[in-house]
Amino acid sequence: MEFKEIVKNRYACRQYLDKKVPEETIRELLEIMSYSVSAINLQPWRIKVVSDQETKDKLFEATWGQNQVKTCSHLLVLCADVDYPAIIAKFDKTLAAANAPDDMRSAMVELAANVSNGMSPEQKLQWSQNQVYIMLGNAVNGAYSLGLASGPMTAFQPGEFAKILKLPANIVPTALVAVGYPADKFLGKMRYPVDEILI
Amino acid sequence: MEFKEIVKNRYACRQYLDKKVPEETIRELLEIMSYSVSAINLQPWRIKVVSDQETKDKLFEATWGQNQVKTCSHLLVLCADVDYPAIIAKFDKTLAAANAPDDMRSAMVELAANVSNGMSPEQKLQWSQNQVYIMLGNAVNGAYSLGLASGPMTAFQPGEFAKILKLPANIVPTALVAVGYPADKFLGKMRYPVDEILI
Repeated sequence: MEFKEIVKNRYACRQYLDKKVPEETIRELLEIMSYSVSAINLQPWRIKVVSDQETKDKLFEATWGQNQVKTCSHLLVLCADVDYPAIIAKFDKTLAAANAPDDMRSAMVELAANVSNGMSPEQKLQWSQNQVYIMLGNAVNGAYSLGLASGPMTAFQPGEFAKILKLPANIVPTALVAVGYPADKFLGKMRYPVDEILI
Repeated sequence: MEFKEIVKNRYACRQYLDKKVPEETIRELLEIMSYSVSAINLQPWRIKVVSDQETKDKLFEATWGQNQVKTCSHLLVLCADVDYPAIIAKFDKTLAAANAPDDMRSAMVELAANVSNGMSPEQKLQWSQNQVYIMLGNAVNGAYSLGLASGPMTAFQPGEFAKILKLPANIVPTALVAVGYPADKFLGKMRYPVDEILI
């Protein structure tokens, strides 16, 4: 499927069939998401996959009535990681294990440390969340490419989600992507023509 | 090309051939980008396309030495729009022109107004920038799907960019995507395996 067809035809699915997506398909989607680009390649994200009904029902309570959280097959909770010392240490270790040239590795690690040291906690969160938004795009496109419907959501209570999912303090729920088989239909896309978004 | 192959094989190109991408290919890329998903479908983004050497050279000065700004064929400056009254008025008008059902249209416009009224100027900027990051992902994937190389950048001086490009105050440069034909090679991707990004 051409990429243009993916971005053109995917839509935010709100109603899902009562049918589970096979775990290997979810795994394939997660792999696609893992290839997302991020600044300095730091990959400051984590994903919580929720498929049991009890947890989805609890999470639903913190989404202002977004039914698809309950009815989707799998709910992907895309989280920002803000523990930069750990992120940079992992980055360094992984580059070393991949036999990256020493000068390239140390330059990238130094850059990452400088950027991270220059940020307030709020800026660190925003930086990580920016990268999560890139991943969100790959999640909805990736789902469609695998024959799945999906629906992104950013209106929910991250604090409640963190509590219900027992997430550590450095992992901040940022966006949700419901995934499943559609029970509704694509009604067409309203997007502004290119001439109207150019400036 | 399968979507997985796109996300797996695209890379941040840093060296470009001295060869212009045809305007119709850039146009196709912009169309792909225009289909990006955004919260409440508000599309709070604008794109400035820069291809003349003089402007690229000026912008380069505000990127801490990122050569690809000068050497790429086209530089896409992805901007966040923070003028929510205008964004919502346009959204309303476009839905009406598309004959969207009145109750759906007024519910969406009311939701958008409530969300926007509840945000500080800083939150509005962040909200718009979040959507721009989704578009950034579609830009690099879209470029690859069209046979182009690209390189995303977020380290630059947005204020200088706004001045050089004479952007109005509500249009905030947020991310750059250099586009062109590659003079370097894909050296492979370092990404953490799925098991390490799950939580």
